[in-house]
Amino acid sequence: MADQSLAVQLLLTGNEIMSGDTVDSNSALIARRLGELGIAVERKVALGDERKALISELAAMAECADLVIVNGGLGPTVDDLTAEVLAAVAGVAIEEHAGAIAHLEQWCGRRKLQLNAANRKQALLPAGATLLDNPIGSAVGFEMTVGRCRILCTPGVPGELARMLDTIVDDLAARLGRPSERSVLRLQTFGIGESTAQQLIADHCPDWPAGVELGFRAGAPQLEIKLTVNRARDLAARDACRAQLEDLFGDHIIGEGDATLAGTVLELLRRRGETLTTAESCTGGLIASLLTRVPGSSDGFHAGFVTYANDIKASVLGVSEADLTSHGAVSEPVVRQMALGALERASADYAIAVSGIAGPDGGSADKPVGTVWLAWGSRENLQALELCWPVERNLFQTMLAAAGLDMIRRRLLGIDSQPRYFAQRRANAK
Amino acid sequence: MADQSLAVQLLLTGNEIMSGDTVDSNSALIARRLGELGIAVERKVALGDERKALISELAAMAECADLVIVNGGLGPTVDDLTAEVLAAVAGVAIEEHAGAIAHLEQWCGRRKLQLNAANRKQALLPAGATLLDNPIGSAVGFEMTVGRCRILCTPGVPGELARMLDTIVDDLAARLGRPSERSVLRLQTFGIGESTAQQLIADHCPDWPAGVELGFRAGAPQLEIKLTVNRARDLAARDACRAQLEDLFGDHIIGEGDATLAGTVLELLRRRGETLTTAESCTGGLIASLLTRVPGSSDGFHAGFVTYANDIKASVLGVSEADLTSHGAVSEPVVRQMALGALERASADYAIAVSGIAGPDGGSADKPVGTVWLAWGSRENLQALELCWPVERNLFQTMLAAAGLDMIRRRLLGIDSQPRYFAQRRANAK
Repeated sequence: MADQSLAVQLLLTGNEIMSGDTVDSNSALIARRLGELGIAVERKVALGDERKALISELAAMAECADLVIVNGGLGPTVDDLTAEVLAAVAGVAIEEHAGAIAHLEQWCGRRKLQLNAANRKQALLPAGATLLDNPIGSAVGFEMTVGRCRILCTPGVPGELARMLDTIVDDLAARLGRPSERSVLRLQTFGIGESTAQQLIADHCPDWPAGVELGFRAGAPQLEIKLTVNRARDLAARDACRAQLEDLFGDHIIGEGDATLAGTVLELLRRRGETLTTAESCTGGLIASLLTRVPGSSDGFHAGFVTYANDIKASVLGVSEADLTSHGAVSEPVVRQMALGALERASADYAIAVSGIAGPDGGSADKPVGTVWLAWGSRENLQALELCWPVERNLFQTMLAAAGLDMIRRRLLGIDSQPRYFAQRRANAK
Repeated sequence: MADQSLAVQLLLTGNEIMSGDTVDSNSALIARRLGELGIAVERKVALGDERKALISELAAMAECADLVIVNGGLGPTVDDLTAEVLAAVAGVAIEEHAGAIAHLEQWCGRRKLQLNAANRKQALLPAGATLLDNPIGSAVGFEMTVGRCRILCTPGVPGELARMLDTIVDDLAARLGRPSERSVLRLQTFGIGESTAQQLIADHCPDWPAGVELGFRAGAPQLEIKLTVNRARDLAARDACRAQLEDLFGDHIIGEGDATLAGTVLELLRRRGETLTTAESCTGGLIASLLTRVPGSSDGFHAGFVTYANDIKASVLGVSEADLTSHGAVSEPVVRQMALGALERASADYAIAVSGIAGPDGGSADKPVGTVWLAWGSRENLQALELCWPVERNLFQTMLAAAGLDMIRRRLLGIDSQPRYFAQRRANAK
């Protein structure tokens, strides 16, 4: 699978991953980043915070691997054993590292904190260790070589690990001496399930080329489709595959790389100098939150309304109380008036309005849990649709927030055709 | 760590977990289910679908563990190697298992499918293996004993694994013959970092009892402190430790188990029949979203306002345009007026208002990125404070949303003392 012959193993530490309290996503991140260089991880071992077991495992790994990445155990507590474990394996002492102290002082200084004894413990490293830069956290990353094996010790906090991996991957690329020919194209989609995507490709692309590796990564709400080639000469075949996927999935493709629905919508708005507002009932502010997570979102998003209660829909957004009574909050007249009220109050060009039954309570025979009315568009051209998406509460909120953003994306791109989930999720007998 | 002396290891198989395309959550599920019986997993190893590596790893595990659970590799494709790997380790042949064929025929029959060659491959098991019941999927689970080690082979599909674990856990409980004495107490805290917590305990609890295991799980925004005892006779010592922690951390403890700030605030509101509203600028709807993730949140939360732009703060919440101009959006008068505007428009009893600079842009020398004004309380008693929390944008939003909820929690509980983060995060020269 990989074109580099480096033998790489991961050692993951922490009682929380052994007890199942934490799901380890760090090792997947490390594997994906190394994969960009064509480096495969051949073995991962996870252990609790037990000195003896860690020492024996790391010593065994150092015997047979070229590169070991240790994750976790860099923190200030007594549970954090990585430095002393590596020192034992390397047969060196633990000592205070001047560079690590400087890093910690700087980190505390930025936060106007005093360096305490617990922080100082983080600067106790195996003698001869070299620092790995952590631009955002207090944890001190470090590396040293034992025998012929390079051992990198990285932080368990996912954001800190992600930043440190940038440096590690750059350094590995330089050490490998030649640019990898590996190329990964990631397409982000919304509105297609993984099994449907696989079936479509199996049915329509029977002659998939051997040099183009196809992968999927299903996350709610998006599905990533990944095309990997390991040799430059397969790039033309990759581009042909991409064209086939674009034919198959069409406007369900949001963009490349890390594209998100919220980021794409904000970029489309920015180019047009237009703005979007939200009127949310069952999604409860999630659409606004997804938009405002994006840096610079203030250009395209000025105001959002969370109108959870009926009287608030009336008083804040001007929804007709008569319509609330006669049609109920989860109805076309109400969701349209929510959108229009938000458009007016925010002086915005586009609105998304959502009113539905997230559950677990609140459903009825007529409108079961999962029923939702969605409205989207402008004052002049406002559309609305009833869907039924009967899944667990938080997944319901996630999928409906995404569907709302997707409809605005489609509007801004002038896409007329309906997404697949409209047919699949259309509410009963509509 | 556990009171049962069973040595348990997990072997996780699959190229998709090695490449990072899939995050392994199965091993966490297995660990949590075994944890219910007081059984700890001492080691987990993950490998790709490579016959030789799998055989050597499983053989080594069988040498030193009492119980090995293998996950994945039971499917119908050539990548699915578990049966032949176990046969090689046990030194037996592979043969068609009559019970497995019956299971597959039944499974296909329910779906009106014909048993095909790929399905039949799933019935090829090591000679002498016993089936593990899979009530929902086609994969055939099986077990056998090699030397003194019991080896259970389970499916990689999470839903099928979950159902099979019900049977496995019941069977283990029966074999162990007595209920576990293990007891885990989890305390949720907000406003104390892991290193501070560790330091406080080290300083104030020098005689921590050996029978009470102390653990931490740092998540943004909460820190979980976990007290585990493995013998019933240590429960009194655990309760004494808990009392010490309550003295040390006091009102920074939110609650037990899975308590969250949003859930705690909603429960306090529900008991009083009162409501909360939100006026969010830099947190952009995150506080509203956290509240509405909780089932039943409509009792205590009726309306939220996301007023990201200055003119919206004026038009929607009635903030004085003169104050916006003279003091700026990130100022005490503005955040107080945001809170009061939301209180009036939502007819709510309490409000949280937040206005700050989440970054990465928008800071100035006077008000750097991370500067934020927070207001909280009721019409009659509205408090406000300026903090500076200079961290990455999404972490800033997470921590400020939590701080807002925490201040309402403190108000509802009548807590007068200030949280530790007020002192640490107080803005310059205030």
